[in-house]
Amino acid sequence: KIIMSLNAPLNRKLRMGIVGGGLGSFIGRVHTVAAGLDNRSELVAGAFSSNPERSRNSAPGYGVDESRAYGSYEAMLDAESRLPEDQRIDFVSVTTPNHTHFEIAKAAVEAGFNVVCDKPMTFDLDQAEQLLKTVENSDVIFALTHNYTGYPLVRQAREMILGGELGEINAIRSQYIQGWLRDKLEDDDQKQASWRTDPSKSGAAGAFGDIATHAYNLGRFMTGVLPETVSCSLKSFVEGRKLDDYGTAVIRYENGALGTVTASQISHGRENDVEIEIDGTKGSLKWRQENPNELHYRQNGKAHQIYTRDPNAPYMHETAAASCRLPSGHPEAFFEAFANVYAAAFDDMAKRAEGATIDRKKSLYPSVHDGVEGMYFIQQCVASSQDNAAWLPLKHPVARV
Amino acid sequence: KIIMSLNAPLNRKLRMGIVGGGLGSFIGRVHTVAAGLDNRSELVAGAFSSNPERSRNSAPGYGVDESRAYGSYEAMLDAESRLPEDQRIDFVSVTTPNHTHFEIAKAAVEAGFNVVCDKPMTFDLDQAEQLLKTVENSDVIFALTHNYTGYPLVRQAREMILGGELGEINAIRSQYIQGWLRDKLEDDDQKQASWRTDPSKSGAAGAFGDIATHAYNLGRFMTGVLPETVSCSLKSFVEGRKLDDYGTAVIRYENGALGTVTASQISHGRENDVEIEIDGTKGSLKWRQENPNELHYRQNGKAHQIYTRDPNAPYMHETAAASCRLPSGHPEAFFEAFANVYAAAFDDMAKRAEGATIDRKKSLYPSVHDGVEGMYFIQQCVASSQDNAAWLPLKHPVARV
Amino acid sequence: KIIMSLNAPLNRKLRMGIVGGGLGSFIGRVHTVAAGLDNRSELVAGAFSSNPERSRNSAPGYGVDESRAYGSYEAMLDAESRLPEDQRIDFVSVTTPNHTHFEIAKAAVEAGFNVVCDKPMTFDLDQAEQLLKTVENSDVIFALTHNYTGYPLVRQAREMILGGELGEINAIRSQYIQGWLRDKLEDDDQKQASWRTDPSKSGAAGAFGDIATHAYNLGRFMTGVLPETVSCSLKSFVEGRKLDDYGTAVIRYENGALGTVTASQISHGRENDVEIEIDGTKGSLKWRQENPNELHYRQNGKAHQIYTRDPNAPYMHETAAASCRLPSGHPEAFFEAFANVYAAAFDDMAKRAEGATIDRKKSLYPSVHDGVEGMYFIQQCVASSQDNAAWLPLKHPVARV
Amino acid sequence: KIIMSLNAPLNRKLRMGIVGGGLGSFIGRVHTVAAGLDNRSELVAGAFSSNPERSRNSAPGYGVDESRAYGSYEAMLDAESRLPEDQRIDFVSVTTPNHTHFEIAKAAVEAGFNVVCDKPMTFDLDQAEQLLKTVENSDVIFALTHNYTGYPLVRQAREMILGGELGEINAIRSQYIQGWLRDKLEDDDQKQASWRTDPSKSGAAGAFGDIATHAYNLGRFMTGVLPETVSCSLKSFVEGRKLDDYGTAVIRYENGALGTVTASQISHGRENDVEIEIDGTKGSLKWRQENPNELHYRQNGKAHQIYTRDPNAPYMHETAAASCRLPSGHPEAFFEAFANVYAAAFDDMAKRAEGATIDRKKSLYPSVHDGVEGMYFIQQCVASSQDNAAWLPLKHPVARV
Repeated sequence: KIIMSLNAPLNRKLRMGIVGGGLGSFIGRVHTVAAGLDNRSELVAGAFSSNPERSRNSAPGYGVDESRAYGSYEAMLDAESRLPEDQRIDFVSVTTPNHTHFEIAKAAVEAGFNVVCDKPMTFDLDQAEQLLKTVENSDVIFALTHNYTGYPLVRQAREMILGGELGEINAIRSQYIQGWLRDKLEDDDQKQASWRTDPSKSGAAGAFGDIATHAYNLGRFMTGVLPETVSCSLKSFVEGRKLDDYGTAVIRYENGALGTVTASQISHGRENDVEIEIDGTKGSLKWRQENPNELHYRQNGKAHQIYTRDPNAPYMHETAAASCRLPSGHPEAFFEAFANVYAAAFDDMAKRAEGATIDRKKSLYPSVHDGVEGMYFIQQCVASSQDNAAWLPLKHPVARV
Repeated sequence: KIIMSLNAPLNRKLRMGIVGGGLGSFIGRVHTVAAGLDNRSELVAGAFSSNPERSRNSAPGYGVDESRAYGSYEAMLDAESRLPEDQRIDFVSVTTPNHTHFEIAKAAVEAGFNVVCDKPMTFDLDQAEQLLKTVENSDVIFALTHNYTGYPLVRQAREMILGGELGEINAIRSQYIQGWLRDKLEDDDQKQASWRTDPSKSGAAGAFGDIATHAYNLGRFMTGVLPETVSCSLKSFVEGRKLDDYGTAVIRYENGALGTVTASQISHGRENDVEIEIDGTKGSLKWRQENPNELHYRQNGKAHQIYTRDPNAPYMHETAAASCRLPSGHPEAFFEAFANVYAAAFDDMAKRAEGATIDRKKSLYPSVHDGVEGMYFIQQCVASSQDNAAWLPLKHPVARV
Repeated sequence: KIIMSLNAPLNRKLRMGIVGGGLGSFIGRVHTVAAGLDNRSELVAGAFSSNPERSRNSAPGYGVDESRAYGSYEAMLDAESRLPEDQRIDFVSVTTPNHTHFEIAKAAVEAGFNVVCDKPMTFDLDQAEQLLKTVENSDVIFALTHNYTGYPLVRQAREMILGGELGEINAIRSQYIQGWLRDKLEDDDQKQASWRTDPSKSGAAGAFGDIATHAYNLGRFMTGVLPETVSCSLKSFVEGRKLDDYGTAVIRYENGALGTVTASQISHGRENDVEIEIDGTKGSLKWRQENPNELHYRQNGKAHQIYTRDPNAPYMHETAAASCRLPSGHPEAFFEAFANVYAAAFDDMAKRAEGATIDRKKSLYPSVHDGVEGMYFIQQCVASSQDNAAWLPLKHPVARV
Repeated sequence: KIIMSLNAPLNRKLRMGIVGGGLGSFIGRVHTVAAGLDNRSELVAGAFSSNPERSRNSAPGYGVDESRAYGSYEAMLDAESRLPEDQRIDFVSVTTPNHTHFEIAKAAVEAGFNVVCDKPMTFDLDQAEQLLKTVENSDVIFALTHNYTGYPLVRQAREMILGGELGEINAIRSQYIQGWLRDKLEDDDQKQASWRTDPSKSGAAGAFGDIATHAYNLGRFMTGVLPETVSCSLKSFVEGRKLDDYGTAVIRYENGALGTVTASQISHGRENDVEIEIDGTKGSLKWRQENPNELHYRQNGKAHQIYTRDPNAPYMHETAAASCRLPSGHPEAFFEAFANVYAAAFDDMAKRAEGATIDRKKSLYPSVHDGVEGMYFIQQCVASSQDNAAWLPLKHPVARV
């Protein structure tokens, strides 16, 4: 018998249930496209909206049977749990606003479903730590979509650094610059803007919860260097806005490295400019999300080298090469990176389905621990900013190397 | 009743049957990912390989039931034709080497299936003209995957030019530079290289059939300006290679414009560098495939402008904006562009399924006429090159504006 | 009679005497090339070295008569003062290591000569404030070579911002990244490295004195926004190095803007990468010294605009256009920018020579006040870093808008 | 006694006399700045204008004594010849419109003066061949300002190729794209446009004489590969213009390489975009004048390498490194490249002044032979274009390797 290579040893598509993703949703579409890109999973159920009719109306566009379009996540978990094992969903994708992540993810885990959760993981740190316990008491696979870690050259950077090619890390500079909240869109009921600038839905931070977490996570993912303390200054430049739309954090790492994370949502004409520079004693790296198929590698005395996303290049490390779907010069981008986070989670889901034990702290995809760390980052940045940028601890006990 | 917006008025997924795409195939994967990206079609059948066992073995990886994995395209067309209408495939994707396109596409059209065919359309012009007749005698939708036309900013350029924003077109410079055939890979039985450098499979041209056709088509798609004559010089720089791996064509257009098309497969370290520059009396454009989310627009006396792939930008024309899946700054790339060619074809397939008549010469996706024109381009370039770069006619009677 | 346009109303070349610039000097050559580029001044005297023989040996390479090659700056000032007015030097360029600037510049001013001084202006703030008083008690022209302010597009940015095109300024991010001190060159007696890493010659700071001052000054020059407080973290990553080779400062500005200045001398393969990004309520700017002929200007909803260094472009402001020597597309670079600082100082020197009164606080070239402010920046950054990045005042009373 | 290193063994500044460069002249300023940049020469005389009063009025701006401001080149050559040897000019720079180059340069050579002549060298090939004979019958130094050959990284490319690093050369693609003649400026009496579009002053070609010659020369300089034949298509897109403002030439080289040269003066918003790509069997290069401090070097299977203009980098060849005045990261540009052509000519002038014999065919600066070859290129391109792009010989007997 022929085996399906990608979900081996399971050899079937994984069945996906989504929470969120109602008509017109941006992030719901991203999750479904990413999850389905490699034909390894199939969307079969959804609590697309808390409005049952709206949920049903959203089903056909996803090719989901209306009978599995639920009016709430509870209904979905309940109904799916009672389906035969060969029909019920394998995992739940949580794509709703931040303040709902916790209850949905917790319930899904407790119901025994694997979870892929959007970031930030929860509304606050307390929820994150509770969710961590819940996950640890289960055997489910839990992945957090810090999607930028899925770019092949981000993984290449990580492999280079963990393998010592850059030597000791001295400096990590990342920034995430956007301009879309330059105007006070929340006053116009723009959907994306409204919940993101509302402390009751977004959490304690605005730009720092939404995007600085990505920029911080990227440095952590690439280097594995553990943080020590943070000093943060948050600003809300648009008058009347309740959450930060700009900020800078300075980070001291345990190994003596110095880091900076800057995030903006108010920089005119800037789109989604995530950029990171890393300095090591043996080399330096630079990567930029808007031009993701290039990784700049420099060493004194040598030509400035550009590593392209080339699965066949001798310089490419194994995981990075395996994260490519196309030959070099055929650009890959946002969806593919997002899909790579899913793909790594699928690998573990397939193993789990066959009874294997997974070491959560070694996952390639961002884990529940990273989620806790992200919420700690947000909490400490906000607290530091409120205390005149005081230095506060940043290393959470569960932070992984 | 809820309608599925994307395949309206059909309101169901289109069923795809692929020819080619056996295990390890590059272009087969590209077609299936592209066709499936928007959840508008589903791969249900395949003649993945002319080796029946190999075909069956390829099915699970695509999630295709083995019962619909055929050992030949004839078997697929035959069996699928006999399935009930609500099960049988809607279209056939032809992803095999060039010399087999004609018989497969012709048979599929004659069997009443829509066809999506890889380029170059056929082995030679004679086949292309026959296929044109076959298509014209049918009511099927026929799309050719000149995939670069699917990039949103390529469509934006077309809309700008056809709308007069650049004024009269004076010059079109395009080049397509690769390096992968710098070594004589065909001697190592490298699969991609072997058939592409074999005149019995690839046709009369090497680089000019494989890639210069894309570069030429891009200029035609963007401007609609009709060609008049061509003078071409082809070279085979790798010793013993039977087909051209480098060449330059100079093109005179009917409106007096001058064009150049240069293609290379022997430029060290160059990946898939398709670039086009267009000069009009009112403005100039530049676009490069390896950085596809930017379109450079210049006018004397004004700042150099970069249009980004931004579906919400005031400067974006309708078709271009509708070709975006993500907001600006979230890069889209090769798969999405390829998917846009499929999406435009799906629009017409859905209309046809509901009985509408389609004007083939007005399609957004490359048509059978473009396929004929492409084969004429190849034929005339080869003939010109063999005759000391003599000027030969380049305007085929079916070329569309 | 015909007048010489550039040194009008003086209508003769200005005579330059240099301190420093001995054989093999880098910065001495830069000053002489820059000062001479427009044929507005002529090097006629020099205290090239404190070793009299070495000073004499350096003279011919500069085309200076040996009789005016002095063994000390005192000798030069003394001898030149006694020359007839139509022979003696008009100005003294101070190009020696930091710790000597003060005594040389002070003596030159007291002797009535105009001064062009390299940055940082003095060894410490106290010297700077003394020098300020000396200058204010004189009528000499005093210019500080923050040379990056001389780039035409830096001046364009300043004119745009002061004219309100960017609206209120919210954020200023600048960084200055180099890699040349990655190795401990000072142990190899590399001349440039030795004095720059020696606290007795360089002053209280390393990277922050040498390059962060430029990055900070650039933001101040472009925006005129006054600082309030600074929090700074300095690091010395190369073992045994006595001064910082890396650091980050966070700056709060009076108008509520937030700024960051990062400087590195230990980033592998990075050359002289001065970059600045400015966010205003109406637009954002980005400029990078290694590609100085482009200024990126963005506004939400519009194409990303690149202003090139084009003296004839409608968008160019007057001072920026007047700072260009060549048409667009003919790149200008480091020497020309440096020369523009000299040129602006020459304008004032010529006016002074004719008896005009100069308002020092309005000069286009960096002034003695900017020098004081720079020394204050260094002092406060070092003090903040030593006090756990405490917030310290940054606005010096003489800081100009 | 100390020697002046740069004009060794002559050890004094060379004295320059200019023809052209009257008030407001662009190219006259470029020549004087370039010649004076290194303090190796001094402008002491000029026939700035054929209007004696205008010539005198131009003198002060250059710091030239009015007594040596002449009303004609004949007057200058005559008067200077009669000055004592230690006062008279060493060389004549010819910066007038094309149609006057021949008589001026010939007279200067016959009077025994070295000559630095702007390109194209003469009005037509016949004049060029006559001038060659005149120069060969003399012992003067003759340099042609194909200034782009002076960029350090252009020289680096040449040294890499001549040293075999690229292997056998297969393809040379160069283009020179401008937009300034998009409008018919000659109708507005714009000075630069007027003579350049006037066949009686510019010669047989417009864009091809003014800029394509640079692009062609760049390929010849970098590779040394000899041409065989050319097929050229010239266009005049602006209605009523008498000379070409756009064109493309295809070139067959003796070694089998294929080349293309495209020049445009009508591409909106394009400034001075000289770009060249060279493919060899071992590597490929790309260089662009508007970003001249980078040279892109690629080899299959390796990272894309960017060589920066770094005089201290191990990869820099000797002549390229010696052509740098500043460390890497401190950009050099147009003036410095122009100055490098002068500097190389000065080296030979100094040797000649000391009695050495110079092998003209080995000069680093463009020689009189290159001037002849350039005029042959123009003549054959125009003739080919007039004969339906017929293939015409392109190898002139004096072309050097």
